[in-house]
Amino acid sequence: MSHVSHLECSVCGQRREAGVVQTLCDCGGPLLVRYDIEKAKASWNRDSLAKAPPSMWRYAPLLPVKDPKHIVSLGEGLTPMIKADRLAARVGVNDLWVKDEGVNPTGSFKARGMSCAISMCVELGLSKVAVASAGNAGSALAAYGAASGIEAHIFVPRDVPRSNYTECRAYGAHVTLVDGLISDCGRIISERKQAEGWFDISGLKEPYRIEGKKTMGYEIAEQFGWTLPGAILYPTGGGVGLIGMWKAFDELEKLGWVSSQRPKMIAVQTTGCQPVVRAFERGDAKTTYWDGAHTVAAGLRVPKPLGDALTLSAVRESGGTAIAVSDEELLDASVELASATGIFAAPEGGACLAALNKLLASGFLKPDERIVLYNTGTGLKYLEAFSTRFPQSNRSEQDKLGGLITPR
Amino acid sequence: MSHVSHLECSVCGQRREAGVVQTLCDCGGPLLVRYDIEKAKASWNRDSLAKAPPSMWRYAPLLPVKDPKHIVSLGEGLTPMIKADRLAARVGVNDLWVKDEGVNPTGSFKARGMSCAISMCVELGLSKVAVASAGNAGSALAAYGAASGIEAHIFVPRDVPRSNYTECRAYGAHVTLVDGLISDCGRIISERKQAEGWFDISGLKEPYRIEGKKTMGYEIAEQFGWTLPGAILYPTGGGVGLIGMWKAFDELEKLGWVSSQRPKMIAVQTTGCQPVVRAFERGDAKTTYWDGAHTVAAGLRVPKPLGDALTLSAVRESGGTAIAVSDEELLDASVELASATGIFAAPEGGACLAALNKLLASGFLKPDERIVLYNTGTGLKYLEAFSTRFPQSNRSEQDKLGGLITPR
Repeated sequence: MSHVSHLECSVCGQRREAGVVQTLCDCGGPLLVRYDIEKAKASWNRDSLAKAPPSMWRYAPLLPVKDPKHIVSLGEGLTPMIKADRLAARVGVNDLWVKDEGVNPTGSFKARGMSCAISMCVELGLSKVAVASAGNAGSALAAYGAASGIEAHIFVPRDVPRSNYTECRAYGAHVTLVDGLISDCGRIISERKQAEGWFDISGLKEPYRIEGKKTMGYEIAEQFGWTLPGAILYPTGGGVGLIGMWKAFDELEKLGWVSSQRPKMIAVQTTGCQPVVRAFERGDAKTTYWDGAHTVAAGLRVPKPLGDALTLSAVRESGGTAIAVSDEELLDASVELASATGIFAAPEGGACLAALNKLLASGFLKPDERIVLYNTGTGLKYLEAFSTRFPQSNRSEQDKLGGLITPR
Repeated sequence: MSHVSHLECSVCGQRREAGVVQTLCDCGGPLLVRYDIEKAKASWNRDSLAKAPPSMWRYAPLLPVKDPKHIVSLGEGLTPMIKADRLAARVGVNDLWVKDEGVNPTGSFKARGMSCAISMCVELGLSKVAVASAGNAGSALAAYGAASGIEAHIFVPRDVPRSNYTECRAYGAHVTLVDGLISDCGRIISERKQAEGWFDISGLKEPYRIEGKKTMGYEIAEQFGWTLPGAILYPTGGGVGLIGMWKAFDELEKLGWVSSQRPKMIAVQTTGCQPVVRAFERGDAKTTYWDGAHTVAAGLRVPKPLGDALTLSAVRESGGTAIAVSDEELLDASVELASATGIFAAPEGGACLAALNKLLASGFLKPDERIVLYNTGTGLKYLEAFSTRFPQSNRSEQDKLGGLITPR
């Protein structure tokens, strides 16, 4: 099934053994999974996909799980790629698409990474995992923990969206609300994980979540008939989705399934938290910590992503750019996106539309390019943010039922 | 593409022309779409599905849309069928599955019906539609209206979940909050539709939403390798999903794709609104209006479904039953379902698990049957209901951002 060959440090290039528990390289660099692609080609081609399952596991030969019975799946991936003609007309472009990750299990692309990483935990015999999350990764870990029986410990900011908190609790995860940001959550896990016996599944601290996320790149290629688009606008918090797609495109070229043509990779952030944009504009190889990070797009509230160097190099190699939009702009754009496409996107998805408008105005993007807006989650997870636009004056169901069900 | 032949009244059997605008029969009965199945068999077989799209439109030959360019799709259908072994062990059964409709666009199975019905509106040249809804059908109509450019008028109870209200507004639909229930919403549309030029797309008042919903039956058959399960527990508000599946099974048998074996169809309602259960127990052919309907499972708050006769006859023909559970029981069961499967189900989905426990205790269902719990939507749409179990004491993001974004 899997043609995994080994792991490799993304910083120093050191080779590591696959099939045993690995975290970061000694040098602190994230490890990436490498495959024997020549061997994969012998038994796997694009036509094989006709019989593959309708989920991200259709790409199992270039995913790390060796024994299919270890796969923990809730049907993640193979999300819709929607041609957005009504929106295109409003924006003034001719070939606009929205990749809608909101219809994944747990309502965001984070399901892909956790399906892969938790499957590997099952394969490697790990039973307790912990994650530092801005919200949606926590929800996804809680879900795949519940699906597999692996114990999940979730560390999220105290002001995490209610959706994430409620999901994590319903899934039976251990939830800790932290006075701080995702970076503070990560620090607490680092301090406690050895004593508690937790495997740290936070972004890029283990090699397998990115493998799940890279399937977004495989899908873009497959859904466009193996010709990559001109530009992908991707809301960049931790940035692992963008890095994963970039890795996928290289693997696809080695497979001989796509050409060397690459999309411009465009990292979209918010004005309240834009470490990648600042580093891109300064020409820096890495980010520096963004002080006072704040935004309604909770997934973009990542002041110092571990994958910053990989994100920046992918953006630069691709001829892309990094751009920030304000909360006002991204909420306006989310509503515009919903009303012109039928996709109620997360604010992170709306940010991509706001960025598109700016990049068309500046001439960086052209009206005839094939452009993909990446919506990383469903707007249903961000009702607080949208309720500022659509206040509901009536009594809520909760109020009405307050006397019926006693909180426990 | 479509092998539609005509429409037929489900009550008096009168034949109607397809391809023109139709509502109810003169006798008041809902119209059903009929196909030339012998003709379909000549060019379509189970193997054809290998090349079909990963959505409900894979069954297009037995759907009503004649010209594929009229299809309005957001990727609805082909939702996961999840084997729930951890939950099965807790419940004490051996072959338990959850069909998860929560990963549809707009987070519920209502997307299927609206994708089909709005596509037919495009095909028939209709430009303004109205729906009476308990919540999720409104959200779905708003989304497909936005995707197609068709004007959507949504009538929902004033205490509809906040998710539904926010979605409908974000999609740009015209939303009217009604002091009453779905039945009151329906009455208002009936009174105003002629003057306003609205096509009434409310449950079974036109023939095409049920065609979208019937694809749930096709998928169950396909996902189980063309052998239907022993029992399907279905949360029954309007009941059209259940009726649709029953219709699908007949079509599949005529296609020669499944045998004459049928699942026991089990209609699950809540103690606060159980007109179908009452009629089933009394041996009545139709329901009577349920006074004072109330339940946290908003989709089940339908006091007098138009499809009651079809629902009751399907349940009886199948050897199934109808059963009600309390709000306490269904919320407990929703949390149990989430923590043992990784699926954060709508309260309606949780109701099916609560019903399963009762039907195992009574001996109506046996531990070795293949049992499917139908989860009609995502729990994310019902945060008010779940927040009664998981109150969040911290300040919400909304509070924090209250000063940042001025409500409009």
